[in-house]
Amino acid sequence: MSERTIEEFKAEREKLNEIVMKYGGINIKRFYGLDSQVYREGALPSKTKELLGLVASLVLRCDDCIKYHIIRCYEEGLTSEELEEALTIGLVVGGSITIPHLRRAFQAWDELQEGGKAQRETET
Amino acid sequence: MSERTIEEFKAEREKLNEIVMKYGGINIKRFYGLDSQVYREGALPSKTKELLGLVASLVLRCDDCIKYHIIRCYEEGLTSEELEEALTIGLVVGGSITIPHLRRAFQAWDELQEGGKAQRETET
Amino acid sequence: MSERTIEEFKAEREKLNEIVMKYGGINIKRFYGLDSQVYREGALPSKTKELLGLVASLVLRCDDCIKYHIIRCYEEGLTSEELEEALTIGLVVGGSITIPHLRRAFQAWDELQEGGKAQRETET
Amino acid sequence: MSERTIEEFKAEREKLNEIVMKYGGINIKRFYGLDSQVYREGALPSKTKELLGLVASLVLRCDDCIKYHIIRCYEEGLTSEELEEALTIGLVVGGSITIPHLRRAFQAWDELQEGGKAQRETET
Amino acid sequence: MSERTIEEFKAEREKLNEIVMKYGGINIKRFYGLDSQVYREGALPSKTKELLGLVASLVLRCDDCIKYHIIRCYEEGLTSEELEEALTIGLVVGGSITIPHLRRAFQAWDELQEGGKAQRETET
Amino acid sequence: MSERTIEEFKAEREKLNEIVMKYGGINIKRFYGLDSQVYREGALPSKTKELLGLVASLVLRCDDCIKYHIIRCYEEGLTSEELEEALTIGLVVGGSITIPHLRRAFQAWDELQEGGKAQRETET
Repeated sequence: MSERTIEEFKAEREKLNEIVMKYGGINIKRFYGLDSQVYREGALPSKTKELLGLVASLVLRCDDCIKYHIIRCYEEGLTSEELEEALTIGLVVGGSITIPHLRRAFQAWDELQEGGKAQRETET
Repeated sequence: MSERTIEEFKAEREKLNEIVMKYGGINIKRFYGLDSQVYREGALPSKTKELLGLVASLVLRCDDCIKYHIIRCYEEGLTSEELEEALTIGLVVGGSITIPHLRRAFQAWDELQEGGKAQRETET
Repeated sequence: MSERTIEEFKAEREKLNEIVMKYGGINIKRFYGLDSQVYREGALPSKTKELLGLVASLVLRCDDCIKYHIIRCYEEGLTSEELEEALTIGLVVGGSITIPHLRRAFQAWDELQEGGKAQRETET
Repeated sequence: MSERTIEEFKAEREKLNEIVMKYGGINIKRFYGLDSQVYREGALPSKTKELLGLVASLVLRCDDCIKYHIIRCYEEGLTSEELEEALTIGLVVGGSITIPHLRRAFQAWDELQEGGKAQRETET
Repeated sequence: MSERTIEEFKAEREKLNEIVMKYGGINIKRFYGLDSQVYREGALPSKTKELLGLVASLVLRCDDCIKYHIIRCYEEGLTSEELEEALTIGLVVGGSITIPHLRRAFQAWDELQEGGKAQRETET
Repeated sequence: MSERTIEEFKAEREKLNEIVMKYGGINIKRFYGLDSQVYREGALPSKTKELLGLVASLVLRCDDCIKYHIIRCYEEGLTSEELEEALTIGLVVGGSITIPHLRRAFQAWDELQEGGKAQRETET
């Protein structure tokens, strides 16, 4: 999993979601709808909500879910310090069993940071 | 995991089970025996039992176990509608954290469906 | 948990759901709606669906969820043999860690069976 | 668990932590230290950190941990709307298996709200 | 759960196992047999095996299973230092979410230690 | 995961830990320190502690953690019989859902055994 780039991850995710929609009925579609609703800006800002989704994914140890929320956190303008503090809470709550996922979380974050840096340099 | 075809999956599973049997003692063998016994036709039909194994595997989020039971459900003549309803129960019980596994479950099912269709067309 | 009778369990469940509804917004209500939809008769009969919910609850080790589905299975006319086969699959998939929950599952089932027997004797 | 009031919960927690400290060595003490450090105000505010702890506890389904973070969220001045949105994310990520814990989470919150209201009325 | 004494725990466990045996078929009995076989003295001593069962139960967070293995560890002559080191591994692997179970583990151990001490004083 | 050799596994682990340390603050470093402390020789020998880490990793179903502890057990001079008994306890506690991980655990062990044998033959 760790070898796929973020672009490959997004492409595969989309392709597989199409297969889900090919077979999925009304209830799966409702679940998907609900799943995007709950992260919308509300009493809590989107950034906080993405962090909640990220830490929940870390303690439940799902690499794909972690990567998805890492990307969303990046899009919401999260800083590396904020990310580090949130992931550390996940590490302490979930224990050393989360470490392999923590590694891949920071790897994805690093890929986003380096990609962003490269882009800014190109633009200059 | 999602890249392995069903045939590759079966071959690897068999190869690794041989390694288990190389080291495994009487208790592991008993467990393996028990594990095949409980899915045998009984008061409940095999098809229902495979569905129970499938949904348990989905909520516990084990891709290999899901793929195994998807194959068995296909062999038992499950329809796409029945599969979809069972997996949706797993999705609602287990939450969005099961979605990456749900995707790969439908992907395996799709591979079986398309493979079966191709075979029927060849035979005609 | 094991000391509460089934009637007490139902009463507490209802009381607490009222508190959820006092604070819960549209998305929680949607989730509750979805949660009841997926067990409705469809391509799979309700009885099979309740069994799927039961075994998922056993392997995830949630006593309240197990008790709820045990009651529903009883209402759907499940036999003791069918229940035993389904729970045994849960035991083998989920391991000995499920045994305390398996015990309380059979205890709830026994309470329902004995209660039903008592009622039939009274009616005679 | 749901029958203990928040005061009883705090008292039992303290009593049992004393037993842990009676037997616990340096590493358990270090873990306890780390566990309180990670929720301290930093790049992320304490309130957000308590929400992260709360949602992690909900998806991992630990009633005692949920209750502890509910109390801390209350102390940090969280509103009912913010709590509801955070718990709903936990519900969608973790699925219907979290519902019994969601109920007890709102029950504890309700106890805190009603207790606070009673106190304000007494003070007037 | 924490309020039951060890004697009450054993009595309830036995009573519920009788209900399991009332309904359970051959496969449940085989599982129970296997479950007692794997802790028998072998290449690894019983004491080590009980510790393995205990730490597995702690990270999976099952109070009844923890209590059972704590009693067995006590019967196998484990020292408080050995217990503490084993439980600390469980705490670090499983994270702070195991703390409520860690508390109850030490509480049960304390009850056994104090009970043993009382008995030795009576005998003098 | 099963395709990576042990050497590749170690190299990737090290590379990713460097990324963790690039972003990780004092609390992550403390956790890493604690995580290595708890496996040090003490009242319990290192070998027993590695077995505890291994079985905890098996029941929590983390391939990377399993592989790490398999390597450490090998370094501590564990025999195949001891390993088999420990893993069987994990299998019975954690159920058939652990089987895919059990397979990869024995595969890694086999790789270490065959590698060690090859080395001894070369040295003769």
